[in-house]
Amino acid sequence: MENIMLAYYAAGAGIIALAFALFTLASVLKEDMGTPKMREISEAVHEGAMAFLNRQYKTLIPFALIIFVLLWGAQFFVEVKEGDHLPVGMPSAISFAVGAILSAVAGYIGMTSTTKANARTTEAARSHGLAKALNVSFRAGAVMGLSVAGLGLLGVSGLYIIFESPLIINSFAFGASAIAFFARIGGGIFTKAADVGADLVGKVEAGIPEDDPRNPAVIADNVGDNVGDTAGMGADLFESYAATTIAAMLIGNTLFGFTGVIFPLLVGAVGIIASILGTFFVRTTEDGNPQAALNVGLWTTNFLTAVGVYFIANSIFGELGIGFGVFMAVLAGLLVNVAIGYLTEVYTGTGKAAVNRIADASKSGPATNVIHGLAVGMESTLLPMLTFAGAIWFSFWAVGSAAPPEHAGLWAIYGIAMAAMGMLSTAGMVVAMDSFGPVADNAGGIAEMAELPPEVREKTDKLDAVGNTTAAIAKGFAIGSAALTALALFSAYVDGVKHKFHDVLPNGEFIVNLTEPMVLVGVFIGGAIPFLVGAQTMRAVGEAAFGMVEEVRRQFREIPGLLEGKPGVKADYARCVDIATRSAIAKMIAPGIVAVTSPVLVGFLLGAKALAGFLTGLTVTGVLLALFLSNAGGAWDNAKKWIEKGNIGGKGSDAHKAAVVGDTVGDPCKDTSGPAMNPLIKVAGTISLILGPLLTKL
Amino acid sequence: MENIMLAYYAAGAGIIALAFALFTLASVLKEDMGTPKMREISEAVHEGAMAFLNRQYKTLIPFALIIFVLLWGAQFFVEVKEGDHLPVGMPSAISFAVGAILSAVAGYIGMTSTTKANARTTEAARSHGLAKALNVSFRAGAVMGLSVAGLGLLGVSGLYIIFESPLIINSFAFGASAIAFFARIGGGIFTKAADVGADLVGKVEAGIPEDDPRNPAVIADNVGDNVGDTAGMGADLFESYAATTIAAMLIGNTLFGFTGVIFPLLVGAVGIIASILGTFFVRTTEDGNPQAALNVGLWTTNFLTAVGVYFIANSIFGELGIGFGVFMAVLAGLLVNVAIGYLTEVYTGTGKAAVNRIADASKSGPATNVIHGLAVGMESTLLPMLTFAGAIWFSFWAVGSAAPPEHAGLWAIYGIAMAAMGMLSTAGMVVAMDSFGPVADNAGGIAEMAELPPEVREKTDKLDAVGNTTAAIAKGFAIGSAALTALALFSAYVDGVKHKFHDVLPNGEFIVNLTEPMVLVGVFIGGAIPFLVGAQTMRAVGEAAFGMVEEVRRQFREIPGLLEGKPGVKADYARCVDIATRSAIAKMIAPGIVAVTSPVLVGFLLGAKALAGFLTGLTVTGVLLALFLSNAGGAWDNAKKWIEKGNIGGKGSDAHKAAVVGDTVGDPCKDTSGPAMNPLIKVAGTISLILGPLLTKL
Repeated sequence: MENIMLAYYAAGAGIIALAFALFTLASVLKEDMGTPKMREISEAVHEGAMAFLNRQYKTLIPFALIIFVLLWGAQFFVEVKEGDHLPVGMPSAISFAVGAILSAVAGYIGMTSTTKANARTTEAARSHGLAKALNVSFRAGAVMGLSVAGLGLLGVSGLYIIFESPLIINSFAFGASAIAFFARIGGGIFTKAADVGADLVGKVEAGIPEDDPRNPAVIADNVGDNVGDTAGMGADLFESYAATTIAAMLIGNTLFGFTGVIFPLLVGAVGIIASILGTFFVRTTEDGNPQAALNVGLWTTNFLTAVGVYFIANSIFGELGIGFGVFMAVLAGLLVNVAIGYLTEVYTGTGKAAVNRIADASKSGPATNVIHGLAVGMESTLLPMLTFAGAIWFSFWAVGSAAPPEHAGLWAIYGIAMAAMGMLSTAGMVVAMDSFGPVADNAGGIAEMAELPPEVREKTDKLDAVGNTTAAIAKGFAIGSAALTALALFSAYVDGVKHKFHDVLPNGEFIVNLTEPMVLVGVFIGGAIPFLVGAQTMRAVGEAAFGMVEEVRRQFREIPGLLEGKPGVKADYARCVDIATRSAIAKMIAPGIVAVTSPVLVGFLLGAKALAGFLTGLTVTGVLLALFLSNAGGAWDNAKKWIEKGNIGGKGSDAHKAAVVGDTVGDPCKDTSGPAMNPLIKVAGTISLILGPLLTKL
Repeated sequence: MENIMLAYYAAGAGIIALAFALFTLASVLKEDMGTPKMREISEAVHEGAMAFLNRQYKTLIPFALIIFVLLWGAQFFVEVKEGDHLPVGMPSAISFAVGAILSAVAGYIGMTSTTKANARTTEAARSHGLAKALNVSFRAGAVMGLSVAGLGLLGVSGLYIIFESPLIINSFAFGASAIAFFARIGGGIFTKAADVGADLVGKVEAGIPEDDPRNPAVIADNVGDNVGDTAGMGADLFESYAATTIAAMLIGNTLFGFTGVIFPLLVGAVGIIASILGTFFVRTTEDGNPQAALNVGLWTTNFLTAVGVYFIANSIFGELGIGFGVFMAVLAGLLVNVAIGYLTEVYTGTGKAAVNRIADASKSGPATNVIHGLAVGMESTLLPMLTFAGAIWFSFWAVGSAAPPEHAGLWAIYGIAMAAMGMLSTAGMVVAMDSFGPVADNAGGIAEMAELPPEVREKTDKLDAVGNTTAAIAKGFAIGSAALTALALFSAYVDGVKHKFHDVLPNGEFIVNLTEPMVLVGVFIGGAIPFLVGAQTMRAVGEAAFGMVEEVRRQFREIPGLLEGKPGVKADYARCVDIATRSAIAKMIAPGIVAVTSPVLVGFLLGAKALAGFLTGLTVTGVLLALFLSNAGGAWDNAKKWIEKGNIGGKGSDAHKAAVVGDTVGDPCKDTSGPAMNPLIKVAGTISLILGPLLTKL
């Protein structure tokens, strides 16, 4: 069965995805951009987004170089015995660099696609109608989706073909994580600073409508949609993809050798082909429902993936008797995806009981609105956590119960990695659906700014509404995949350090014993880190938004005729983009240092056992805070929208004012601090994978 | 060393404490109550508080009876072998009932003392001055403090003398926990409903001052101070006291036999005697600083306890060589107490950077105030968690490193229980300081309502300000002790179920293996429970407050002359008390059911290993949420007070209005949901102690 050709198939699937993405991008770029005004706005957004990416990646270069050198140089500080595979040295440093670079490349391709497609979507809506507009915007999203999945699979399988050891290439995941953490936080701060600046001064103080070209922060706001939802989410899922695949390969290697290594790559390949095929099913008619079209695409992808995995699992693991068990574990991952999306909707969907309760509470003022929003956020954690618990149990059981009794306990661990793989195999499609959102959102903004007739805006608004739903699904997917990825990383970490633990059980199982003080110490410290990062990021948004508010006020004050809309007077959009960029980049550093150094400190100061406890504490509270913050924010947002639709007094009522307070509190929760939790728990896991074998050498 | 007389000494110390409490109560009751008006108000508060306690305990009787019968009857459903000690049957049922009843008795004694001392404190301030007022109010608090500690120690040692097995009497802790959970939540809902009702309609809508006798909710508000801070906190710490002592005895029994069982009782006895002596050091002069007087009392208690424990530890554990190690572990507990009090002050103290930042953020409106408050709350978790982690590590190390190498790993577990004992041994003094607060607060209210000259109110305000600080210290103490108690309970639980685990290590250590799916499943479910209870309790306050607001509005509307203050027109105070009581009692049920049934469901459906994971997840997120919610609430409160002192625009400014929103959001956080976390994590632990041995029989 040791057939390295199979790795080439996986790499081939990655190349196909990438080729498909680039081909789709070319086809999107052929679409018409509309009027000169539309083209001008679109280019401003594109330039702003690229300026942000350039600055962000440039800031990260020294940081990445330090880690590159450390990874390379660490081999001279640890004693390496013959036959030892250590995750340090030249190959690891190279893998790290490739992970970081591919994450950036995916970001650039995706951002180019979405920021160049916005005016083209507006134009499609204007000249052709809804069906064509969906077509353009979804294709733009698909470029991002398939770049993420394609580069992820190509990177992992390519490096495996070269270095032939999952241990050596696990720095690839670390490279991807490090970038993802900064991309998520930087993007999150940027988008909320611009949003608050545009809303608070433009809408509230100056009383001009959303997306009005007089507002100096309007371009920054549109850039923010892209750097937050597209670049941030893309980097996040690229990381999950890379980390899960490598964790699964590491565990698979210990348990089954080559068979266990190659299978995750093949699951990835199946998922990618299924995602490509799925994109062809996303089409609608003029009066059709775009949401239904996207759902058909997603379900097709899920179904094709399941079928493909069924055959591959049986062919690879059939001999060992666990083919069906492995398939069931992968299926569990696909189902978690569906369940989390559904639960997100229950707690944050417009018109749902939870959201209505917040809207009702707005009648007695902002305080009760906030209290009920916090309550909804807290409550919303239980069912997703039970879902994860169910997936953990089921995936272990599915593999363990099919395995021969003497291997049951050990082999079962492969199950959780397979559930994570199952969930992530469809990342291409999920990212495509998510990235389509900002394109539709921007398209509406361009329709407004270019003063197109209202029926264009109506069509883009229809797409935008769908985009909000797909964004919620993607958020749930990101949290769910982060949770499963973290568990897979945890298993792989423990597997890597097991000979360090004096208490390996007779049957070969290794243990992280919660009654040992160091493990508990790690759990307590790890549990507090997400709260610290949450605090840092919330405060960062507040401070960045403050700078933005000052700048918008200044422009209205100092540029004569701007507020009145005098022809020829233009706001200094670029300066707003620049301010948001600067503060986002400056403020992503501190949480980044916490995320990267805390596992290193715990590992070196307190040891490998404490690090295992640390990962557990960090994962549990990280996932809980991600759910709490994202869902509270989503529910506040939709409670406000519900009132704006004319319920409970409607726009301008006291209840509406109270709901605006809740929505503003929710903004950094749902778009900055909440999403920051996903890369936080994963980056700790990927660092630990590298630290683990080093700790056992000390 | 098997000298049962030592247990009689402990019981004797409990009786001394109780006698001292009753003697002090009698002396307090001899003080003058002042004018008929003062007496009348005081009696209304007393009656309201008693009515609440009566209704609350009456509601809990059927619930307690069910558990009583289940505990008694369970012996017929499990196979009991010769020599088995199981925590079921008649002795366990009786222990449970004794725990529940003594918790209630402590509540009645303490509430009688504080509600009867309020007018006497006012009168002391009026006729004698500050020194005497401190003397009366602190003695009233000491009654509660020494009742809690005395009944706790007497109950545990008395039951141990009768049944001679710590396993059998551990239902005593369960009885105490069950009552504590309801007392905390019921009291928390009552106090906030009354507070919000009084403030929102009285102060904000009708524009009458705080504690104005025209306000129909004013008596309920004063009752709330007592049922929240005195009864709730007292029950909480009674539970910690009982649970920690029994957990320490259980672990001690396994490790050292009788020696290990008797030592915790003797530590308790030392702490009680030290607390009694400490109360004599609380005296101040007319221009003295009451805070300094209380600090002298606390430090004296800490010092005497440390000295006493040093000698006892050496005499009991000297032979085993771990006398000094055990002493150090106890000392660590005392130090955690000091550290947590200090950290609470750093994050919530008026004039501190964290609070000022929230006050500053109020300038840009309620949303930024709330965001910064959430950030402070989140941030405030890290250092306390590091403190707990340090205490865990140190107390294990202190005992483990002194032990003979072959016992090191196992004996070290006694360390954490000793740290918890150390912290709780001074509970008598801490509860005394905490309970003094509501007396001073009520005394001020009575001065206002009885229209005494302003210099009386000035004196009581001075005491009240000190009461706010001691309340913050006690809150930190309650969280810290809950965390250490939960860890001790966890250790005792694992000890109790270890033969269930097939993987007991060769050296006799027992393991809860985080890489096993069921343990992880438990961690995930346990982690979500505090979020659920947090949501339930926050919402309960909102709903109860709503009912209160309606009633106060109704009285102003329907009672002619009330708002104008026409002589002879009186508000219907009793009805407000009744409404707060009803809704508090009704709304404590749902979270109570979650708290009590979730560990039972996890234990029976998923097994003993899942329950161990459940306790870990629950403890970590419970402690984190307790810190987050309590500190955020405290910081919001003091940010508002800071502005009211004339900073950042002062009272009535927009910043002040924003700060009021934050304070209102913080109210249920700091006085209901946050404090609910302590009994939540302990009740799960005490139930598990009973379930554990049953699960191993299934």
